[in-house]
Amino acid sequence: MKYLPGEPQHLPGNRSQMAGYQARHFLFAVDNGVATVALNRPERKNPLTFESYAELRDLFRALTYADDIHAIVVQGEGGNFCSGGDVHDIIGPLTRLDMPGLLSFTRMTGDLVKAMRACPQPIIAAIDGVCAGAGAMMALASDIRLGTERSKTAFLFTRVGLAGCDMGACALLPRVIGQGRASELLYTGRSLGGVEGERWGWFNSLHQPEELLAAAQAFARGLADGPTFAHGMTKKMLQQEWNMGVDEAIEAEAQAQAICMATNDFHRAYHAFVARQKPQFEGD
Amino acid sequence: MKYLPGEPQHLPGNRSQMAGYQARHFLFAVDNGVATVALNRPERKNPLTFESYAELRDLFRALTYADDIHAIVVQGEGGNFCSGGDVHDIIGPLTRLDMPGLLSFTRMTGDLVKAMRACPQPIIAAIDGVCAGAGAMMALASDIRLGTERSKTAFLFTRVGLAGCDMGACALLPRVIGQGRASELLYTGRSLGGVEGERWGWFNSLHQPEELLAAAQAFARGLADGPTFAHGMTKKMLQQEWNMGVDEAIEAEAQAQAICMATNDFHRAYHAFVARQKPQFEGD
Amino acid sequence: MKYLPGEPQHLPGNRSQMAGYQARHFLFAVDNGVATVALNRPERKNPLTFESYAELRDLFRALTYADDIHAIVVQGEGGNFCSGGDVHDIIGPLTRLDMPGLLSFTRMTGDLVKAMRACPQPIIAAIDGVCAGAGAMMALASDIRLGTERSKTAFLFTRVGLAGCDMGACALLPRVIGQGRASELLYTGRSLGGVEGERWGWFNSLHQPEELLAAAQAFARGLADGPTFAHGMTKKMLQQEWNMGVDEAIEAEAQAQAICMATNDFHRAYHAFVARQKPQFEGD
Repeated sequence: MKYLPGEPQHLPGNRSQMAGYQARHFLFAVDNGVATVALNRPERKNPLTFESYAELRDLFRALTYADDIHAIVVQGEGGNFCSGGDVHDIIGPLTRLDMPGLLSFTRMTGDLVKAMRACPQPIIAAIDGVCAGAGAMMALASDIRLGTERSKTAFLFTRVGLAGCDMGACALLPRVIGQGRASELLYTGRSLGGVEGERWGWFNSLHQPEELLAAAQAFARGLADGPTFAHGMTKKMLQQEWNMGVDEAIEAEAQAQAICMATNDFHRAYHAFVARQKPQFEGD
Repeated sequence: MKYLPGEPQHLPGNRSQMAGYQARHFLFAVDNGVATVALNRPERKNPLTFESYAELRDLFRALTYADDIHAIVVQGEGGNFCSGGDVHDIIGPLTRLDMPGLLSFTRMTGDLVKAMRACPQPIIAAIDGVCAGAGAMMALASDIRLGTERSKTAFLFTRVGLAGCDMGACALLPRVIGQGRASELLYTGRSLGGVEGERWGWFNSLHQPEELLAAAQAFARGLADGPTFAHGMTKKMLQQEWNMGVDEAIEAEAQAQAICMATNDFHRAYHAFVARQKPQFEGD
Repeated sequence: MKYLPGEPQHLPGNRSQMAGYQARHFLFAVDNGVATVALNRPERKNPLTFESYAELRDLFRALTYADDIHAIVVQGEGGNFCSGGDVHDIIGPLTRLDMPGLLSFTRMTGDLVKAMRACPQPIIAAIDGVCAGAGAMMALASDIRLGTERSKTAFLFTRVGLAGCDMGACALLPRVIGQGRASELLYTGRSLGGVEGERWGWFNSLHQPEELLAAAQAFARGLADGPTFAHGMTKKMLQQEWNMGVDEAIEAEAQAQAICMATNDFHRAYHAFVARQKPQFEGD
């Protein structure tokens, strides 16, 4: 199969294939349903630019329909995750924009987080070294975060004179590490180390730097080999129930799980269990 | 007093007495206002069946009106809490149901969680051994969780091809252990051990297996001897304020606490304090 | 400049100056933009009275407009933070009030928390010794909590026959320490020690008693020297997004951050970065 760079192949039923996608502003590789997105300007610790922001937003939006990608790893090349918005390429130009231009930018960065939360694939962030600003937000927008002891996560918007409320930080971070600890990180912009990050629930686990990417891909592989339609429903409902009441959330889950009980994967699991075999899920 | 099995005794003012309730599908015992519900199919690690689900739902609904029960302990016999929905008794039949039938089932299981959150009595779960699937959800629907080091909690819906959104898990679990850790457990279905569970705030405390039930009953006793009307209001407001704004929650608590200040227990506490005595609460 | 005691000096544009405010029922001192509020009845462990509640509420409301105060430290004199509502001055009279009178009181105490959450200045609580009842709620209404190992935090409303839902506790506490641990503290009223409190995320950090106030003031100084307009926006959005959906929160932050990008502090930070200097923020 051949694809134009940056073009998904559209299939019937609002589905498409993305394995052949050729990224322009970062690396994108697919191994049997697991996509790895790698920020790749290691000499600058992988900062984001207007172009990479926009392409990431478009990529995650397109992944919503990709039925050949079942889990996503996000990482940075060269020992750092991401240093955030480039000071020269982004901060400088922003100081010369009018208000509609500023809002247009903050909506683009927010749209990246929205797209990462909206795509059905679980996202595993592999975080080594610097993880700062918008980079920390990409980590926060992921479902699972694997880190290293030496990693440094900093929501450092305050260091450039801005508020901690960037790309959804004030909504998302308190739910991950608690309101008091989130307040501290957002007000001060201080670095959170790996050990403290694991203790707080920011990281799901810590790994040696040289084993980090493999660990993230193994985690993603485990999910991609699972009931992927159901995983997409789990992700959707984690988002959907964010601000529902408890009783409404329970009804929403009754409906969502009834849908999952009508899938073949549910039947496959039952029959495998009865036959004392390991189930082979196919995502339908 | 004599009761028909399974029949509460109705009293004026929407109240009833449940101490004489005779359970059909689990054990139910009451000691001076503390009820202990024990799942009791130890040879299968206490799985749930259609019948026990329905009776548990009805029991917790009836407890809403029971003014002779002030705290509830939930436990499993034989060193395990609950292995969840029985594969043969539940999963098999579900694979043969149509969509209305599936939704009817998922609503029944959700109704059990709704009933556990709606009854005014604090629920203390005593969790040893296996605590899986719907069993993990019964633990999550409790107010307090006491565990053992060897306990294994697993939201293993994904292992049978289903989503993690079952009985309210995607709403409740992130609020207990944080969004990142909850995502991991719900996507992977992996077992959470006792030590890790206590560290994450899943367990309030760990106990020796042989002391677990007594610890849970002592905790329940402490609450049953306290201002039980006020405890019921605490439970109601933890539910009620789940998705309120902060200011609305504060007004809701102003009203709720004003009601509590009109109770005799508040007066008893004040007069006991002035008399340098320990207050004797009566729940009115 | 001269001020009448208790009177802020009003300036154009809905702003005022509060540095000269002379408190009646506690100590109030300002050092270059950092205000320190000290509860000061050490012989009784700094209980609150009807008068101090009302003055605190009015002070925090007035601080909303004070453009000469950029961070606030709250502490207690004599080795204790606050023992809560005075039993003789408050609990006794409450037992003799009618329902409108009770609601009037619970609304006043709730209004204190509302005012602490509504003022733009981050609030740093320095907590040593006893931190109980309404005192624990003042700590919870703060943005950052620094503690000591020997500190004892107790939401002890239940000990006086009341519910745990007081001044917003059932909304705020679960978001700081998780739903399970919050339930335990609110139902039982038990003391949370300093080490456990830090482990649970209640405290941001622990300090030696003799260094606690200085640590809190240094923390506040760091924030007061930062982009204070942006800090006020961070605080506003942490409140505003409390019960928004994720996508709505992201749009709200896009707007809030676009406003911050139009401030001089953002430009100052950029130009300082380019000049390899430390930025000097001015809060506009």
